[in-house]
Amino acid sequence: MPKLPIDSFATAIMSSSKAAASRTMSVRSRSMQVSASAKSKALSYESINHAVRNAEYAVRGAIPIRAEQLKLILDKDPGSLPFKKIIHCNIGNPQALKQKPVTFFRQVVSLCTNPDLLKEENREDVLKLYPEDAIERAHKYFEKGGTVSTGAYTHSQGMPVIRESVAKFVEERDGFPTSPDRLFLTNGASAGVQMILNLLSANPKVGVMIPIPQYPLYSATMAMVNGTAVPYYLDESLGWSISIPELERAKEEAENLCVSTKALVIINPGNPTGQCLTWDQMENIIKFCHRNSLVLMADEVYQANIYNDDLPFHSFRKVLKSMPMQFQDLELISFHSTSKGMIGECGMRGGYMHLTNIEPDVQAEIYKCCSIQLCPNVPGQIMTDLMINPPKEGDASYQTFKDENNTILESLKRRAAKLVTAFNSMENITCEPSSGAMYAFPNIALPQRAIDAAADHNVKPDAFYCLQLLEETGVCTVPGSGFKQVPGTFHFRATFLPLEEDFDHFIGLISDFNTKFMEKYRSE
Amino acid sequence: MPKLPIDSFATAIMSSSKAAASRTMSVRSRSMQVSASAKSKALSYESINHAVRNAEYAVRGAIPIRAEQLKLILDKDPGSLPFKKIIHCNIGNPQALKQKPVTFFRQVVSLCTNPDLLKEENREDVLKLYPEDAIERAHKYFEKGGTVSTGAYTHSQGMPVIRESVAKFVEERDGFPTSPDRLFLTNGASAGVQMILNLLSANPKVGVMIPIPQYPLYSATMAMVNGTAVPYYLDESLGWSISIPELERAKEEAENLCVSTKALVIINPGNPTGQCLTWDQMENIIKFCHRNSLVLMADEVYQANIYNDDLPFHSFRKVLKSMPMQFQDLELISFHSTSKGMIGECGMRGGYMHLTNIEPDVQAEIYKCCSIQLCPNVPGQIMTDLMINPPKEGDASYQTFKDENNTILESLKRRAAKLVTAFNSMENITCEPSSGAMYAFPNIALPQRAIDAAADHNVKPDAFYCLQLLEETGVCTVPGSGFKQVPGTFHFRATFLPLEEDFDHFIGLISDFNTKFMEKYRSE
Repeated sequence: MPKLPIDSFATAIMSSSKAAASRTMSVRSRSMQVSASAKSKALSYESINHAVRNAEYAVRGAIPIRAEQLKLILDKDPGSLPFKKIIHCNIGNPQALKQKPVTFFRQVVSLCTNPDLLKEENREDVLKLYPEDAIERAHKYFEKGGTVSTGAYTHSQGMPVIRESVAKFVEERDGFPTSPDRLFLTNGASAGVQMILNLLSANPKVGVMIPIPQYPLYSATMAMVNGTAVPYYLDESLGWSISIPELERAKEEAENLCVSTKALVIINPGNPTGQCLTWDQMENIIKFCHRNSLVLMADEVYQANIYNDDLPFHSFRKVLKSMPMQFQDLELISFHSTSKGMIGECGMRGGYMHLTNIEPDVQAEIYKCCSIQLCPNVPGQIMTDLMINPPKEGDASYQTFKDENNTILESLKRRAAKLVTAFNSMENITCEPSSGAMYAFPNIALPQRAIDAAADHNVKPDAFYCLQLLEETGVCTVPGSGFKQVPGTFHFRATFLPLEEDFDHFIGLISDFNTKFMEKYRSE
Repeated sequence: MPKLPIDSFATAIMSSSKAAASRTMSVRSRSMQVSASAKSKALSYESINHAVRNAEYAVRGAIPIRAEQLKLILDKDPGSLPFKKIIHCNIGNPQALKQKPVTFFRQVVSLCTNPDLLKEENREDVLKLYPEDAIERAHKYFEKGGTVSTGAYTHSQGMPVIRESVAKFVEERDGFPTSPDRLFLTNGASAGVQMILNLLSANPKVGVMIPIPQYPLYSATMAMVNGTAVPYYLDESLGWSISIPELERAKEEAENLCVSTKALVIINPGNPTGQCLTWDQMENIIKFCHRNSLVLMADEVYQANIYNDDLPFHSFRKVLKSMPMQFQDLELISFHSTSKGMIGECGMRGGYMHLTNIEPDVQAEIYKCCSIQLCPNVPGQIMTDLMINPPKEGDASYQTFKDENNTILESLKRRAAKLVTAFNSMENITCEPSSGAMYAFPNIALPQRAIDAAADHNVKPDAFYCLQLLEETGVCTVPGSGFKQVPGTFHFRATFLPLEEDFDHFIGLISDFNTKFMEKYRSE
């Protein structure tokens, strides 16, 4: 049996089975309300929208919740646990792990937020703290942007001046023009993905193909909108690649269950798997979608997180536009975000989606959904513009920006390789390379005794591993079961975001833990 | 017939019937794609989620869209229309109409966004631009707040330090304590409302009672989540009051249609109607909810917009907590926002919801929904804290804050009264007082000839009035049909947000237009 105190395990298990956990809690709370009338509640776990209940989201699920509890214990009594701090590797949240924000970007948002800084009378004092080009940029959003304040609702698709800028970025990146009218700024990419999945899911007979392993936003949202997630498996033995026969198989299997697939989700670079698609693979995926009349949903939020020079990022839009005429009516929705890349501005909740070949009457419905939510947050809109339109050569801030960007990129590259190498050196662990994104997704060959022990504790085997890792080292990860995986295989996702100076220590923690774990559970 | 060019009308009508409009457009776009294969699209207006199609949202609907078109015309050719600019009175967006943001609030958000400003080495220069208490406040979010950057995802419910602060605010406002665990920070109030309505709506047989007239977020969201909106009418003859017999009638009518009502929405102060509830009315509403096991959803986003000293704001939570023990298990969810009040920070998308007596297992599901969206935007979270925790007596910024706040409040008070009085002096128009919120909702007794002319143009009669008002004066309002109203009555909603120095001109525009309109359509 694990040497963990059974209490902490019980708590964690309880949180992992939310229904059981919260039912327990609710019994407690009911008993405290004996003095009020005993009538039944209008909102009970049993009576709420089942589609909401069916959604699962492990990235902030049982293990991160347990990590929060441990943090509170550490805050109160720092010496009471076998570690000094929680290392949050469960989520791609670079600035929470002390990655420095890009100076120019923050300067501009800060200037936009305080209109007094843009007044002529303060110029001299402001120039002591801000470079000229940041001030100039801030003015852009007010003068030409037609926005009078970051505190005003904007156009529901986002500020026109920023959509124009994004359209220019897309054109320069892909070599094909687009229109600002086809762009929708969003509160992070997630908001856009949720809106589109809701739009697609007319009923449970409508399927959306999602990769396994996947970022659980997709499965959770498909559950919440009462559509059907049609899983296709990435091939771990080929570096988590996508094979067309597997896509065909998945689609056919869905059809056999009378589920009609409407869309295909591709996450490129992959999350949690870190693979990057080649041009050829992308062409084949486009042909598959076209042949089967599927909307292609391209989650490209990690497009700047590229660590292998042989696998550069191509947008699906670029590949599509470069293909023969017969494919040019493919419906494509591409997503981008300020949360990832070198800027990692997760808290700003910025991003955009880009519609290609979407019918105008469908776009009108998307616009309506956006308008009900009024508009995406304005600082996030400005951050989106900054991300795709950073200082250029010759600008006062260019050198600083370039240095900051390269420092982060080169460091992430080194950390990705280092973590993958470390995993591959650990007993019973193998790990495919991380060519992109922010994660390693190692495969753990769990000994049967560990699987049995997990069953004794009523947790999934990979959750058992991750929970013990957390309890013994403070390293917080997400079990592969949270992303789904080939049955019988076990993984976990860890970001490689701890700062480089802490990285050897971080790897040492996992490595030592794994050695002890495997010793304890190694089959005789 | 109206003297408007039929072209502009056609465009507006087309946009008002989105289906027709966009189908027309889609035919056009298809014909431009003849060279691509002619296969049918995966995403068509016919095939998408019908629940999305069924949603209507007039606040940013046909008339505001027409206003945007007119703005483009003015930008190109300023002399081509009978007015010089569009006056956007369709939406409560104060800063778009040049209301000044509160200085202290913006200073703090600006400081938080640019971490260099909080460095000791810059302190001297920063003090030339920022007061001491703003700097101190900014530090609060980083040091005690446990947040390392506004660019990091926070706790999915929002930063603990801010939820503690909101809990203190609620306690001071109501005289009853609450826990930060019961608070969820949101991207504006709308995001919270949408999440709760989705949670409630297990199936179309579940009803949520909404006021008529209502803010159309409610009807639109109920359509999108496939629940049933159960309308109850506000009594215009009694200043848009809420009567218990009408609530009983509405509930019974729903039951006769086999719809089981689960919740009651109250907007107080009212939107679009501007009424404020008395303590007694609120007690009776609570008793009604309790008797019928309804969740009370209290939309209190206008709680600071109070213009009649005899009708002060009381939160539903305060009234509930002051009632006898037998009512103390009422389920209550209260909403607040940074978009309204004196600060009007719409673009920041800040707000919170507060759960009272919600079962812990249901709260766990709400938490899960929040976690899928990761977290509300951080600048909006900080703005929420600033709103409910402004400078206090003795703070360096107190006097400025107090002056700014009072200036806006007093001005809004004057403008509310002035607009209502003006409406009541216009032919065929009556208007109940605006005791709160940001809107007047006048009743227009439309002559039969106007109703007939509207039918000739295939628009609703009040939309016909609002469209002509827009085309002739540039004043953009929302027809009562967008909020729903007693059949056969006609209204429109206008904000009283144009700046005070422009206010007489603004009233003159409406008044002159109304005179001409009534002259033209007056029944013989």
